[in-house]
Amino acid sequence: MGVGLGSALIKLGDLSSDSDQVSVESIVLAVGLLCVCILIGHLLEKARWINESDAALFIGLFTGFIILLKTHGKSSRILQFDEELFFIYLLPPIIFNAGFQVKKKHFFRNFMTITLFGAAGTLISFCIISFGAKLLFEALDIADLELRDYLAIGAIFSATDSVCTLQVLNQNETPLLYSLVFGEGVVNDATSVVLFNAIQKFDLSQINSMIVLKFVGDFFYLFLTSTLLGVMIGLLCAFIIKRLYFGRNSADREIALMILMAYLSYIMAELFNLSGILTVFFCGIVMSHYTWHNITEQSRVTTMYGFETMSFIGETFIFFYVGMDALDIEKWRLVSSSPWKPIGASAILLGLVLIGRASLVFPMSYLSNLAKKSKNDSKLKPKQQVTIWWAGLMRGAVSMALAYNQFAKSGHTQEPGNAIMITCTITIVLFSTVVFGSLTKPLVRSMFPRSNHQDIMVSSEPSSPNSSLTLPLLADRLESEGGDVVVSIKVLSNPTHTLHHYWKKFDKAIMRPVFGGK
Amino acid sequence: MGVGLGSALIKLGDLSSDSDQVSVESIVLAVGLLCVCILIGHLLEKARWINESDAALFIGLFTGFIILLKTHGKSSRILQFDEELFFIYLLPPIIFNAGFQVKKKHFFRNFMTITLFGAAGTLISFCIISFGAKLLFEALDIADLELRDYLAIGAIFSATDSVCTLQVLNQNETPLLYSLVFGEGVVNDATSVVLFNAIQKFDLSQINSMIVLKFVGDFFYLFLTSTLLGVMIGLLCAFIIKRLYFGRNSADREIALMILMAYLSYIMAELFNLSGILTVFFCGIVMSHYTWHNITEQSRVTTMYGFETMSFIGETFIFFYVGMDALDIEKWRLVSSSPWKPIGASAILLGLVLIGRASLVFPMSYLSNLAKKSKNDSKLKPKQQVTIWWAGLMRGAVSMALAYNQFAKSGHTQEPGNAIMITCTITIVLFSTVVFGSLTKPLVRSMFPRSNHQDIMVSSEPSSPNSSLTLPLLADRLESEGGDVVVSIKVLSNPTHTLHHYWKKFDKAIMRPVFGGK
Repeated sequence: MGVGLGSALIKLGDLSSDSDQVSVESIVLAVGLLCVCILIGHLLEKARWINESDAALFIGLFTGFIILLKTHGKSSRILQFDEELFFIYLLPPIIFNAGFQVKKKHFFRNFMTITLFGAAGTLISFCIISFGAKLLFEALDIADLELRDYLAIGAIFSATDSVCTLQVLNQNETPLLYSLVFGEGVVNDATSVVLFNAIQKFDLSQINSMIVLKFVGDFFYLFLTSTLLGVMIGLLCAFIIKRLYFGRNSADREIALMILMAYLSYIMAELFNLSGILTVFFCGIVMSHYTWHNITEQSRVTTMYGFETMSFIGETFIFFYVGMDALDIEKWRLVSSSPWKPIGASAILLGLVLIGRASLVFPMSYLSNLAKKSKNDSKLKPKQQVTIWWAGLMRGAVSMALAYNQFAKSGHTQEPGNAIMITCTITIVLFSTVVFGSLTKPLVRSMFPRSNHQDIMVSSEPSSPNSSLTLPLLADRLESEGGDVVVSIKVLSNPTHTLHHYWKKFDKAIMRPVFGGK
Repeated sequence: MGVGLGSALIKLGDLSSDSDQVSVESIVLAVGLLCVCILIGHLLEKARWINESDAALFIGLFTGFIILLKTHGKSSRILQFDEELFFIYLLPPIIFNAGFQVKKKHFFRNFMTITLFGAAGTLISFCIISFGAKLLFEALDIADLELRDYLAIGAIFSATDSVCTLQVLNQNETPLLYSLVFGEGVVNDATSVVLFNAIQKFDLSQINSMIVLKFVGDFFYLFLTSTLLGVMIGLLCAFIIKRLYFGRNSADREIALMILMAYLSYIMAELFNLSGILTVFFCGIVMSHYTWHNITEQSRVTTMYGFETMSFIGETFIFFYVGMDALDIEKWRLVSSSPWKPIGASAILLGLVLIGRASLVFPMSYLSNLAKKSKNDSKLKPKQQVTIWWAGLMRGAVSMALAYNQFAKSGHTQEPGNAIMITCTITIVLFSTVVFGSLTKPLVRSMFPRSNHQDIMVSSEPSSPNSSLTLPLLADRLESEGGDVVVSIKVLSNPTHTLHHYWKKFDKAIMRPVFGGK
């Protein structure tokens, strides 16, 4: 082995710093520090103001600082922030797990609202941020960018950070908010991608109704195909495992097949330029609804906690990574001549993010409340609207990746304008994650005291083995029964529920006999 | 996402074929084909002559063939055979899982024999292969290589394929043979590494007693430090989880910590140029003996089946990968001028491997039988000796990686001599895996009919959820109790057992209270 790696290291020597190869040293360092992050996260568990992602961020910053000192200001990173690593390896398990564990009832009941927020809402904040930035940047002469760049900025800072949302909102404490904010995050991601693609693709010199129409068409095409792909692969997996009865001889085969097919769905979506996040999210939902019931008991436990662990490691790593990348000296050196510019730009963009998000959430909530005729609790109260507004303010790795793609491609960070955009993206990501992120938890706690949710809370504490072993089944049973009751009450009150009701009939009659399920 | 990957793909365009970057297409292809391998492996389950690794190999070959046609003979691979990918990502989970699942009782009872086979044995076959190759190659004028190369060949073809052994021997059917052959494989790997390093390092012009002594010293240093590192990290992990009671708030944290620390042990060993395989193997043993008992029930199930799945995916991928690489046209084109040479070389080396292995197994078995004074069944009968001889004939990815390291480094495959060595390494790996590998299963079946082992067999069939959920605990309890009884009988008959006995006392009195355990 020593040999194999020895030569790997030699190879490394020859490679430029922005290659995707990683040295053994950096792996040791990264893995070791991840262990530290987990330990500290565990010890901070009771803390009210700081969450795990902050801990990881700070450890990342600290590491970057140490490396900076050791390399005498040459570099601050053990690995380059690398779109490929992020999009191909880290993001899929996180989003898949989110789909796998999401409370389907809440998600589908609020489907309309979610789409409204995610699609129309993102467009609003996109417009506000783009044109706000254009006006203010030019007025204050912060940077001279093309129209294309301003639109890109709009798309970049409209992408909320689904990962961070998962960390600060607890699906068992505030299921409605969780499904709204997270569901929105998923749709919102898809929207940002189309926006971003559209900006690259379309000729912006002459914007006319055709282009807008084409754009809207693109969006719906992307949304539908991505969802469909995920659902189909999920169903295929369920069918194969049910028919061939994989559990018969070994648990590892069926688990392996689930993992591989889930990943396949994501990577296929990427291949066809769809939104892999949407695809793998729906693949996760389908797998938890059908496939999961076809596998052996031990595989159920393994998949449930295994996927959770994968996503947990991924999340921790991302925040650690972003923190470490923040101190990358090159970017700061370029803007050091006029330090106030990135600060000003960041301040402006943060302001625009706040305004954009506000003018998205409150009108949309008003609309979705209008749609709900009845006086039932599914209307969004002001408190909840504020929380939705706040919880969607975090900007994370997706924004980073898009920003790098727009402003650091083919290393032309040399242009001061681009350097400023990169640095202020980092500033905003750090600020929003740390400040907004750590304020969200207490905000939610104060607005929605835990006591109301004790009955559901149990499922978030798998302390007693037995309870948590039977938890999945239990949870599902609760869900479906609860679902039926609620539905039968609300059928007439709300079109979405009627839909939901018929779906459940169809599911029981046709889908489950074929693809398995309770 | 589309964007991120879009640019990733563009980047790919610029990169040379032997970079470690992989395109989305190749990931889709690889993951998709892995699913196919698993499906076919599942359907072949009852087959007597072909096992999963063969299936993966053939699918790999077939894929390579298709790609060959599509690229009009330019390339046969979706990814380059890549030491780093293999040693850094694929091998560790496989070996860790082997250590995690190995029947500790058998392994430690035969510790002496295993070391004898692995260390002294490997040296014997190394000498025979090296000098046999030197004589015959020069006599038949197959290739003109340096002494260094011949010694390298000896090391390369002395490395048995632990991965393939895991596939063809079943630990529940023939526990003794399994632990002997696999344990030997692990030690043997360490030996090959030292040999290989030594060949690179030492000045071979003047071989004297000092160098030999230094070499022997090196070996024991490597063996001890590697083992120690693995044990220490395993104990540290057990201690942390026991003290901080990780299970309290979430299962995923403790699982994540186990995975990361296991990997850390491997990669740290590589960093210090130790044998990562030895390290992670013993780390696995310690974790299953202590750590595993400190975690929550659901984490136990998850780790047990999760690690198994990871290793399963890794194994399947390796065989698929080697199969695909075998058709790489460049290597064959170089030797096409004199096609008989690689064939001759392969034949000679296969012969030497057979002889070397024979002159390792039978004398060593004789010795280890002498050591065992009593008439108990732990003596190696001729049948078993033959099986050990046969099961250790497979050459796999480790040989491949070492061969690439010696003969394809800095792409000087252009020299015909090196090209021949690469091609005949591939030939031997394919032949030994397919022919020897597929003959091993029936051989074992015919020599040791299953019926004798029905009592243990149950644990290899986790068909009924409950039995398999409680399986680990059960298995362990059986093991320890069984262990005590056997020990008390044999204490006086065999020094190893006395050692084993005192160890159990020490374990109960000091280790378990501190690090946890039954």
